[in-house]
Amino acid sequence: MHRSRLFGIFIDTPQGEAGAAAAFWSAALGTTATPVPGEEEFIALRDAFPGLAVDVQAVDDTPRYHVDIETDDVAAEAARLTALGAVVEVDNGGHRTLRAPGGHLFCVVPVQSEGDLFDRTARTWP
Amino acid sequence: MHRSRLFGIFIDTPQGEAGAAAAFWSAALGTTATPVPGEEEFIALRDAFPGLAVDVQAVDDTPRYHVDIETDDVAAEAARLTALGAVVEVDNGGHRTLRAPGGHLFCVVPVQSEGDLFDRTARTWP
Repeated sequence: MHRSRLFGIFIDTPQGEAGAAAAFWSAALGTTATPVPGEEEFIALRDAFPGLAVDVQAVDDTPRYHVDIETDDVAAEAARLTALGAVVEVDNGGHRTLRAPGGHLFCVVPVQSEGDLFDRTARTWP
Repeated sequence: MHRSRLFGIFIDTPQGEAGAAAAFWSAALGTTATPVPGEEEFIALRDAFPGLAVDVQAVDDTPRYHVDIETDDVAAEAARLTALGAVVEVDNGGHRTLRAPGGHLFCVVPVQSEGDLFDRTARTWP
C-alpha cells in the first residue's frame, strides 16, 4: 500500500519574469513571496490556500501551470498513474514528470508537506 | 471593500479528450467525475482537495491548466488585479479572463463556492 495527495499548483514562469510573477501572485492572493533556500527556481506563496502549495517556478520555457502529486512511494504512485493512462515524460528517479490523458504535464514527488498534513489528508491506494 | 479567494484549478482539455481526462484525474485524485448540469463543458472532480474546486473543462484549444479567483465584486477585483499588472483579455461582464505578469491566464468569477466557504476564507481588500 502507498499514499498520495494533490500537493500544489506551480506557476511556471520564464526566468526573466519570475520575480514580476511572484510579486503579482503574492499580492493577488494576499500572501508573501518567499524564495526557497537551496531551490532558487522556486518562490513560495505561503498560505495562499490552506494546505495547498502555490509556488512560482522559474523555467526555461513558456508560461504554464502544472500540479504536483506528493507520495510516500514515487515508484508505486507512478506505476498506479501509468496504469490509469499517464505516460512518464521524465524520470528523475527522485521525482517524475508525467503526461496525463488529455495532455497535461504533472509531477510525482516525494512527500513535501510539513507537519502531519500528508498523514491527515493523503489517500491510501491498494 | 470587496473580497476574493482562490477558487479552483481547471484542467482545460480539448473537447474530444475531456472524458478521458476526467476519468484519469478522478481516479488519480481518488474522487468522482460529475458533469455539471447546465454547464456541459465542466466535469467536477468533487472533493479532490478540501475547499478547492478541481474541474476538467472541455475547450476548443490546446491542453492547459488555469486558475479561477472568485469574488463578491468582479469589477472591483478586476480593477485591483489590473492595478497589480494584469491585463484583461476577455471581458464577459459576469466573469473576466486576465493575463498575469509572467504570462498566465486566469479568470475572475462571481462567488461559486457553496455554503459559507467564501465567507470563512476570502480575503478582504480595501
